[in-house]
Amino acid sequence: MKEWNIAVVGATGAVGQELLQLLEQRAFPAGTVKLLASPSSVGRRISVFGSEWMVEAISAEAFKGIDIAFFCAGGSISREWMETAVHAGALCIDNTSAFRMEEAVPLIVPEVNGDRIPEHGIVSNPNCSTILMALALKPLDDAFGLRRVVVSTYQAVSGAGARAMQELEDQVRSYVTGESAEAKVLPAADDPKHYPIAFNAIPQIDSFGEDGYTKEEWKMVRETRKIFENPALAITATTVRLPIFRSHCESLNIELRQPATVQQCCALLQQAPGVEVMDDPSQQVYPMPLYTSHRDPVFVGRIRKDPTVAHGINLWLVGDQIRKGAALNALQIAEIWSNRRS
Amino acid sequence: MKEWNIAVVGATGAVGQELLQLLEQRAFPAGTVKLLASPSSVGRRISVFGSEWMVEAISAEAFKGIDIAFFCAGGSISREWMETAVHAGALCIDNTSAFRMEEAVPLIVPEVNGDRIPEHGIVSNPNCSTILMALALKPLDDAFGLRRVVVSTYQAVSGAGARAMQELEDQVRSYVTGESAEAKVLPAADDPKHYPIAFNAIPQIDSFGEDGYTKEEWKMVRETRKIFENPALAITATTVRLPIFRSHCESLNIELRQPATVQQCCALLQQAPGVEVMDDPSQQVYPMPLYTSHRDPVFVGRIRKDPTVAHGINLWLVGDQIRKGAALNALQIAEIWSNRRS
Repeated sequence: MKEWNIAVVGATGAVGQELLQLLEQRAFPAGTVKLLASPSSVGRRISVFGSEWMVEAISAEAFKGIDIAFFCAGGSISREWMETAVHAGALCIDNTSAFRMEEAVPLIVPEVNGDRIPEHGIVSNPNCSTILMALALKPLDDAFGLRRVVVSTYQAVSGAGARAMQELEDQVRSYVTGESAEAKVLPAADDPKHYPIAFNAIPQIDSFGEDGYTKEEWKMVRETRKIFENPALAITATTVRLPIFRSHCESLNIELRQPATVQQCCALLQQAPGVEVMDDPSQQVYPMPLYTSHRDPVFVGRIRKDPTVAHGINLWLVGDQIRKGAALNALQIAEIWSNRRS
Repeated sequence: MKEWNIAVVGATGAVGQELLQLLEQRAFPAGTVKLLASPSSVGRRISVFGSEWMVEAISAEAFKGIDIAFFCAGGSISREWMETAVHAGALCIDNTSAFRMEEAVPLIVPEVNGDRIPEHGIVSNPNCSTILMALALKPLDDAFGLRRVVVSTYQAVSGAGARAMQELEDQVRSYVTGESAEAKVLPAADDPKHYPIAFNAIPQIDSFGEDGYTKEEWKMVRETRKIFENPALAITATTVRLPIFRSHCESLNIELRQPATVQQCCALLQQAPGVEVMDDPSQQVYPMPLYTSHRDPVFVGRIRKDPTVAHGINLWLVGDQIRKGAALNALQIAEIWSNRRS
C-alpha cells in the first residue's frame, strides 16, 4: 500500500492535535510525518502512529518530499507558506479562510462536493459553521431546492482555538474559587475589547464589516453559496459565541422551493452521508453539544414544519467543531485524494 | 397617598423575591404585604419596606382586604386560588401561563398595550421571552407593520426557577472540584429525562406538543398574536436553554410590510419605552446577558438589513428574565392600575 508523506502546519493547536489523533484512528497510510509549528513549540515531541516526532519550524526545506500538507495555523501562516508548499508538489489542504473565496481554489465538504477535489494545488476546508450547515442542507437542496435559509448559531469556544478553550476553563474555575480571570481572547484575540464567556453569550464571532455583519456571518453565506455552486442562494446568519467547549449548534429556518413533509425531510437526512438524525421529542431525544463532542457526524433534530411560510422547515443541528468542523473534514479530503491514486 | 394592600403568592421563589425588591426600590405605595407560599416556606420571615413579614400559607382568609394579588408560583397554584382572590376583590396579576390565552383575560406588556389593563379581575403577565420580544417588535409594527418573525432564543436558567439556577451553580462547582452533580431540574422538572446544563445547550423549554414544537415556542407565537391583536401574525420560534443565569437573548429575523432603513429602525427603537439600543459594532458594543442582569430595559443591538427578503431586518436582544421578563412587568401593571385610581 502506498504511503503518503504528511506535513501538519500548526501541529500543536486544537485542530492540529485533533488531526494527528484522527490520522492514527482512521489508519491513514502515512509515511513521514512532519510536525510544523511556531518557534515557541519547536523541539516538542509528539507521538503519532506509535512514533515520536519532533516539532520543527516551518521552512521551505520542511515541505520537500511532502505529498499532503495540512495548514491548521492562522490565515497569515497559510498566506506566507502556501506557495512554497504548492511548489514543493504537496496537495495543500488549508483549514484557514485565506484562500477559500479564490475562484481557482475548490472549497470542499466531501459529502457535498468531494468530486471537486483537485489533483494538486490548494483545497480549502470551509469554515466550521458552514461545514455543519452544508451537510444538513445538501439532501434538502437535492430533493426540494433551497429558497432561503435563516440561521442563528450557538458556537463553542473551540472555534477560537485552544487559548479560548482554556479561557472558558479558567473563568469557570475562578468563578468557583472567587478569584478573577481576565478575558484576553474572546470574542477575537486581535480586537481591542475582550468579554468574559462564562455564563455569557457574545454576539460577535470574528470582526465586523461596515454592513454590521461579522466575517463569520458572511463566511456562512458566501462559502455555502460557493459549495452549492449557487451564487444567488439566500442565506442570512447571526453567529453567537457561548460557554460550550467544542460542539457548535445551529437553529435553521429553511424555505424550500417545493413542498416537503417533515417525514420526507427526516428520511432524506437519515440517508445523507455525514448526518445522523436524532429526533424523537416524545422521548426528549434531540442533539446537544455535551453529547456530540468527539463524534464524527452532524446530528440533526427538532425537524418540524414552519407553517408561516411556503415549504418551511425548522431544524436544530449540532456537530463537533474541531472534528467534522475542521480536522475530520480536512482528513476526509486527503483520504479521497489518496484513494484515487492508490 | 392611598396605600394598597398586596399579596404575593410564591413570595419565596425567584420571581416573588425579585418582586419584593422592586416594590421597595420603586417605592410602591403598599399597605399590608401578605407573603404567601407553599407549606415548606411558612413561618420564614422576609424584610420588605423595612418591616419583617412572616410567610403564611395560602388560604381564602389571606386574600381578605387585598387590593392587588401577584401570583408568582406555578400554574396549578394560580388555577387553584385565582377565583378565591378575584372574589375577595383583588386585582389579580398572574405571572403563570394558567389564564393567558383565555379570551376574557387581558395579556399585558405595559409599554405595548397598557391601556388594556382592567379595573378588576385577572390580568396575565406574558411569558418572559414573549415580553422581551414584544417590546422590540412594537415600534417596528407601529411604523412598518410586521409580516413575519423567525426567532431563535438563548434562554437563561432562571426561566425554570430558583432550583434551575442552583442546578447550574452546582454543576459548575462540581465540574471544577471533579465531583458529579446529577441533573434533576432541567429541561423541565416534570419530564422523565434531565440533562446537564453546564457547557451544554438544551433545545427543549417546557414540554413538547404533537407537532414537534414545545409549549414555550407556541407561547411566543400565540401570546404575541394576542398582545398585538393580530391573530394572523406569522411567527416561528426555536427556544433553547443555555448555561446563563438570568438574562434571555433572542436572535430575531423580521420581515416588515413596508420598506425601512436600519437607521429608521434604530431611531424608533431608541425612542421606544422599555427599550435601550446598544448597537455600535465599530466599538464592539452589543447587548450581552452578563451585563444586562438586574437592569430594567430590553437591550437591542446588531440591527442590520437582511438582504435576502423584502424589508428584512435582523436584530439581537437581551433582557433580564426575572425582572422585565416577569416581576417588573407585573409590578408595572400594578403601578398603572393604582395610578389610575389615585
